[in-house]
Amino acid sequence: MAGEIEARLKALDLVLPAAKTAVGTYVPFIHIGGQLIVSGQLPIKDGAVAFAGKLGDGVDIEIGQKAARLCALNILAQAKVALGDLDRIVQLLRLNGFVNAAPGFTDHPKVMNAASDLMVEILGDKGRHTRIAVGCASLPMNVAVEIDAVFAIN
Amino acid sequence: MAGEIEARLKALDLVLPAAKTAVGTYVPFIHIGGQLIVSGQLPIKDGAVAFAGKLGDGVDIEIGQKAARLCALNILAQAKVALGDLDRIVQLLRLNGFVNAAPGFTDHPKVMNAASDLMVEILGDKGRHTRIAVGCASLPMNVAVEIDAVFAIN
Amino acid sequence: MAGEIEARLKALDLVLPAAKTAVGTYVPFIHIGGQLIVSGQLPIKDGAVAFAGKLGDGVDIEIGQKAARLCALNILAQAKVALGDLDRIVQLLRLNGFVNAAPGFTDHPKVMNAASDLMVEILGDKGRHTRIAVGCASLPMNVAVEIDAVFAIN
Repeated sequence: MAGEIEARLKALDLVLPAAKTAVGTYVPFIHIGGQLIVSGQLPIKDGAVAFAGKLGDGVDIEIGQKAARLCALNILAQAKVALGDLDRIVQLLRLNGFVNAAPGFTDHPKVMNAASDLMVEILGDKGRHTRIAVGCASLPMNVAVEIDAVFAIN
Repeated sequence: MAGEIEARLKALDLVLPAAKTAVGTYVPFIHIGGQLIVSGQLPIKDGAVAFAGKLGDGVDIEIGQKAARLCALNILAQAKVALGDLDRIVQLLRLNGFVNAAPGFTDHPKVMNAASDLMVEILGDKGRHTRIAVGCASLPMNVAVEIDAVFAIN
Repeated sequence: MAGEIEARLKALDLVLPAAKTAVGTYVPFIHIGGQLIVSGQLPIKDGAVAFAGKLGDGVDIEIGQKAARLCALNILAQAKVALGDLDRIVQLLRLNGFVNAAPGFTDHPKVMNAASDLMVEILGDKGRHTRIAVGCASLPMNVAVEIDAVFAIN
């Protein structure tokens, strides 16, 4: 059935953000062979950073989770542009999760779970992925989270 | 000869830890095409963090090396579950090493060498891999090191 | 036309640094299937760190950009050793950019643009890649930037 993932997005009342177009000399995604490689996505909506700051230093886990979730939606927005139809996703292979975090922060997995859970809500078992979750000293534009992804596609 | 790597583990008097099973919506590994992709592994043994803290701020290099070594063993434990037989490993392609490190720490390679060396001890030339070694502001559960891996397999 | 990329390097008046040979048990690159995977490269020239220190804490963006550029040249130096002929590069798939950065630093993309731009100057459209840019608490030998890469090759 075509449009299965789109239907699930609708059922979940989720709308993909507008995919950020290429800035400079790097690209938001590369589709090569059976893989779709997506550049690090930020918690940006309508062209502005939606969730900024450092976990464990003024930003609580709930905000971090919202940031991770928005990164995940931006990853899918890029996949939509790349593939046309999200049903072409065979498997989400990897999420690399970079959390803007204070030296004493320890709950990176809780933050990243928001992205992981959303992927499975939307993609089903095709959304079950390998992952890293680490704490960064700082991130571009002071975003709370940056996540990149690799998909197997057909 | 089947069981070659298992025999080497025995000769080195090494026992793989119990592989941590999936928690939440991500998975410890994905086996796709000729590759095995392993999620970030932590220095966890018998369900508890064995080596915690920050390199360059209370944790010395020797402890960091023990942490890196345990991450490497946990990676192989996941590979064992995924592949059944570790002899199916064709080549360790990559280790990404994330060291929980103070701003002034500079010896990330020495820490990661413990993981790299162990892989070659166990896998021989098939264990020679590409690598990154970087310092993180913080890591999940305050572990000293997190390492993920990609293998070529048959 | 053979030697196209070499000719472009010459036209740009760029000389690749000597490729750092393997130290220890990891390797600078692995060439497998249609991919070339390159270990994290540092801003090292003639065996010494050329650009050290932390962005946002004593190191300005221009120095960070020089570091990123030198990392990119070292990546290409490894590719030259691996492939013999840089014209075998089909596409630069990924740059992972790790910037040694203070907690308040936010201009990681500006630093990494120096590496991205150089790749496109040298490789043309084959140099347009996906990317991450994150801030690290510390890096090996206190280098300002570490970058690793994956190429599609033939």
